[in-house]
Amino acid sequence: MSLVKPVEYEDASDEVREIYDELIALRGTGEVSHFWKVLAFHPPTLRQAWHAVRDTMKAGALDEMTKEMIYIAASVATKCDYCIDAHMKHARRLGMTDEMLGELMGVVSVASGVNRLGIGYGIQRQD
Amino acid sequence: MSLVKPVEYEDASDEVREIYDELIALRGTGEVSHFWKVLAFHPPTLRQAWHAVRDTMKAGALDEMTKEMIYIAASVATKCDYCIDAHMKHARRLGMTDEMLGELMGVVSVASGVNRLGIGYGIQRQD
Amino acid sequence: MSLVKPVEYEDASDEVREIYDELIALRGTGEVSHFWKVLAFHPPTLRQAWHAVRDTMKAGALDEMTKEMIYIAASVATKCDYCIDAHMKHARRLGMTDEMLGELMGVVSVASGVNRLGIGYGIQRQD
Amino acid sequence: MSLVKPVEYEDASDEVREIYDELIALRGTGEVSHFWKVLAFHPPTLRQAWHAVRDTMKAGALDEMTKEMIYIAASVATKCDYCIDAHMKHARRLGMTDEMLGELMGVVSVASGVNRLGIGYGIQRQD
Amino acid sequence: MSLVKPVEYEDASDEVREIYDELIALRGTGEVSHFWKVLAFHPPTLRQAWHAVRDTMKAGALDEMTKEMIYIAASVATKCDYCIDAHMKHARRLGMTDEMLGELMGVVSVASGVNRLGIGYGIQRQD
Amino acid sequence: MSLVKPVEYEDASDEVREIYDELIALRGTGEVSHFWKVLAFHPPTLRQAWHAVRDTMKAGALDEMTKEMIYIAASVATKCDYCIDAHMKHARRLGMTDEMLGELMGVVSVASGVNRLGIGYGIQRQD
Repeated sequence: MSLVKPVEYEDASDEVREIYDELIALRGTGEVSHFWKVLAFHPPTLRQAWHAVRDTMKAGALDEMTKEMIYIAASVATKCDYCIDAHMKHARRLGMTDEMLGELMGVVSVASGVNRLGIGYGIQRQD
Repeated sequence: MSLVKPVEYEDASDEVREIYDELIALRGTGEVSHFWKVLAFHPPTLRQAWHAVRDTMKAGALDEMTKEMIYIAASVATKCDYCIDAHMKHARRLGMTDEMLGELMGVVSVASGVNRLGIGYGIQRQD
Repeated sequence: MSLVKPVEYEDASDEVREIYDELIALRGTGEVSHFWKVLAFHPPTLRQAWHAVRDTMKAGALDEMTKEMIYIAASVATKCDYCIDAHMKHARRLGMTDEMLGELMGVVSVASGVNRLGIGYGIQRQD
Repeated sequence: MSLVKPVEYEDASDEVREIYDELIALRGTGEVSHFWKVLAFHPPTLRQAWHAVRDTMKAGALDEMTKEMIYIAASVATKCDYCIDAHMKHARRLGMTDEMLGELMGVVSVASGVNRLGIGYGIQRQD
Repeated sequence: MSLVKPVEYEDASDEVREIYDELIALRGTGEVSHFWKVLAFHPPTLRQAWHAVRDTMKAGALDEMTKEMIYIAASVATKCDYCIDAHMKHARRLGMTDEMLGELMGVVSVASGVNRLGIGYGIQRQD
Repeated sequence: MSLVKPVEYEDASDEVREIYDELIALRGTGEVSHFWKVLAFHPPTLRQAWHAVRDTMKAGALDEMTKEMIYIAASVATKCDYCIDAHMKHARRLGMTDEMLGELMGVVSVASGVNRLGIGYGIQRQD
């Protein structure tokens, strides 16, 4: 499932457990997902990644669901299977409908295809 | 500026000119951008790409500005400088504020960084 | 133009000059291109890269022009502007027509776009 | 196997079934593959993707097998496992030999390796 | 030079200026580079990115120069021209020799080339 | 496990067996790994890839473990699951500690995230 051993709640240091508690409270899923347990292999990375996600994904000028869809777009473009799966489920919980998901994938696909024409024909930004 | 010669309106075949006319009418910018003139080098590709963009980017379950932001996210993730520039300008015309742009880039950056941890530690989708 | 200083023919060591001579003889362009002069910054890399290109790109079960088109496809997909430019010129010298170039770019674009749907919807290989 | 439910032939709408019939007729495999059944989750995307593949991959200035090899090159470069598998099988049916496959992979590998030197040393296109 | 206006020191808010001061003190280059001035367009992103770089790139189990070389490898692999340039200069200041740079690029190139064979032939991790 | 049939030692040609023998001698693992057996499907590619790895990964100005970490960074950035797994195990054998691995992944993650900001905001190299 992963190349390093995930850290279970009961085995976690105080530093890691504090982040786990915050994760559970904010995500409301009742447990820490496999992803974060793997990241706990290296606590400074867990903390850095969690703070980045927590601060960046909260509602601001863009609502949470839009942010999740942007996150999915970037994950599809760079092919992170786990990330697509996890954020698709989260976007669903936030209200993303079948139609929205279909359009999201349509835009990412068209962008990826049309972009290659810009790159293949060497079209450059005009400053 | 590009590796093939762009096709100017006055030199375009009827087939290409028809697409140019539709582009001008829909985009409301009064002229055909450099990008589409380069694609006209191979008319079947121009038609395929234009129809894909036209049909996919129009408002549906997602509004036009959200679609442009998703397009930008995919373009940043796969590094298409020209595409980022063009779609950023279009999203601006559709109402994307500085704050929205800042949050869009923030989400793409965090997604790209955190995704690598999922990939580096070999975390796999749990079916 | 590059981050390290290219090595000109007259400043090259015997080891590098031998590769330059072979390059000139095989490519028939009368001079060493900027690319190889930059790689000469680190002679073992120059030798490794040149031998890989020389041995792999020569006609075999696939002819040279088809190989150049495959090289371009990989370069567009991973966005190497210099490589696209150089190999497009080489493919042209080997007989690639406008129509062939247009179809090559069309296939790369469609592949890049449709692939994202496979990735976005998490479609996996069926073993 | 996928993140959305594939649409079986017997459950398909008329719009989707029409595309399925065309797919079966053109591919001659007697059934609709898993890939297209998943895309049918969002019929406009299915139609757009299918038309792009159908129109772009048919013989033109380049024959079908060469186009499949270019498609594979782009799929390897952007890592789409399912796509590599499906198009490799299709190219095999069109006559790609072991030797051709070996040379195809060799070119993609060398292109991907040598391209990084161009990028790493910051070699830019000379306009 | 960039798609948004960089924030000069004299125009910066207190929040941004505090980060600029820390940057100048830690980097010892006497001024804030163009990169960070552009990021200041959206202060939360500037802060998040700067803290990530500051905390992650400092010497630990790996020394600073090794970390810079790893950073360059990731930047070459994902093609970020600006990043390659900036981190190459920083690695030079930290003691990276010509020979080390040549070997770094050689490893990234070979990894990128050989990896494609693993992907192209569909070789999977054996758990 | 792979899309082509791996070549077992007892079925290998003399040319392939010679490379297998060299691999076993140098790696000291007592057997040829699945990866190289798959590459033997096309002997010229096996030879080219093996020589590239053998010559590039040996200690020079950079030690072997540092080279393996750079290899891993490039493999994470371009997502080659098999490669990450294999080179992580090799780096472990060469002495990479948990702390080093954690920092390696941290640097790749931060580089990947921060790079996207440079790309998204269109920051260009200043020559």
